[in-house]
This record gives sequence, structure tokens and C-alpha cells, in this order.
Amino acid sequence: MHKVNLAEKLRSFDDTWVPKVVGELNGQFVKVVKLEGEYVWHKHDNEDEMFLVVDGNVKIELRDRTIDLHPGEFFVVPRGVEHKPVAPALSQVVLFEPSTTRNTGDVDHAYTLEANQLERI
Amino acid sequence: MHKVNLAEKLRSFDDTWVPKVVGELNGQFVKVVKLEGEYVWHKHDNEDEMFLVVDGNVKIELRDRTIDLHPGEFFVVPRGVEHKPVAPALSQVVLFEPSTTRNTGDVDHAYTLEANQLERI
Repeated sequence: MHKVNLAEKLRSFDDTWVPKVVGELNGQFVKVVKLEGEYVWHKHDNEDEMFLVVDGNVKIELRDRTIDLHPGEFFVVPRGVEHKPVAPALSQVVLFEPSTTRNTGDVDHAYTLEANQLERI
Repeated sequence: MHKVNLAEKLRSFDDTWVPKVVGELNGQFVKVVKLEGEYVWHKHDNEDEMFLVVDGNVKIELRDRTIDLHPGEFFVVPRGVEHKPVAPALSQVVLFEPSTTRNTGDVDHAYTLEANQLERI
């Protein structure tokens, strides 16, 4: 039982597209991640996924529109919906999703990390 | 499917200790709430509760210690743990907890709102 300072956690690593677990509640993980560039199209069949931008700009591309997120804004990608996060410049994000969530969802990719491979910081 | 701007939501009301629902995923609610003064001691027997401070200062009093939260810091109160939030001055908070969560937990109080009475904004 301790508090978590998001900025401090985000200062502690440099790699991009590798979510780190910083909290857990009710079967959900709170993660922080740095994004830069384009991710891969994917979906999560059984998990809704929340992106809260804390720094930078993240565009959540959907097949029929793009959600443009700035600091203090969040978006929930519903389960089953294909999405591709894009960060034009280095951006910092808090993710909230079930602890079972695989980062690249239904897709195998160099970025893929199984849920049990996630680092806790 | 739309994005949520936390500051905009928080500007849209003035009352304190009345959480408003701004998002939902995986059976969890994302809520915003303004706090000022002292709340009531209570616990949630079946729900872990996350407090993320976005403005001000919130002290989560526990029976054996106090967690002092500033903007960008969060704390998860584990289920079953008695707590009393205290905000020395007007503060703004994001709550993350199951959609079944009753705001005053096991206690009946003037502040009590049943989960199905929550306003969505």
C-alpha cells in the first residue's frame, strides 16, 4: 500500500511501446507507456482498453475515424474494435485495462508481450 | 465512442463529494469528483478504489497512516480497508472503481449515493 507518482514512474524508463504495470485493482492493471511513431492495427476481443494521455499527442486510429488525444484526455477502445495508436512525437500515456490484456491483442508482432511478461515498476 | 476531456468535465459542475461518471469499461466506472473538507470513514467490502489527484491535495487517511496525494499521484485503497479522504482545499480527483461501488461503502451518510443514482456527464 503506497502511492504512485506517474511522472516519477515515466521518468524511470526510456523504451517505447512497452507498457509497465504501476498499479492493480479489481483485476485491472494501471500501466504507463511511452509512445512514439506508429503501432500495429489490432483488437482485443474481450477487453475494453482506456488510453489517458498525460504528455504529448496520441491519435487512436479506428477504421472509420481518428480520435485525437491531448494531455488530460482519455478514450476507451471497446472490445472487438480494431485500433492503431499513433504518436507523432514522444508521448506519455496511462493505460487502464484488464490484467489479462495482451498488448498487441489478436496480432503477433515484434511489439508483442504476453500479459505475464509485463514488468512492474 | 468519443474522447473525454477531464478538465472540461470538471469545469461543468461545482458540487463537492458527488462523483459523476465520465467513462465505463470492463465493469468499471471512471468518475470525476471535487473534494473539499473531510469525508466520512468507510470501507468497500468488495471493491478496490483508485484515487488519482488532478488538482489540489487529497489526504487519504487510513487507520494507521495517511497517504498524501498531489496532482499526478494515485493510490489504490484495497477492498475492506477503512479510509477517510480529506481535502484541505478544493481538489479535483479521478476515481476508478467497479460500477457497483457505493460512495460511502458500508456507511449510511448524507453523502450516500447508491451506484444507480450516479449522474453521467
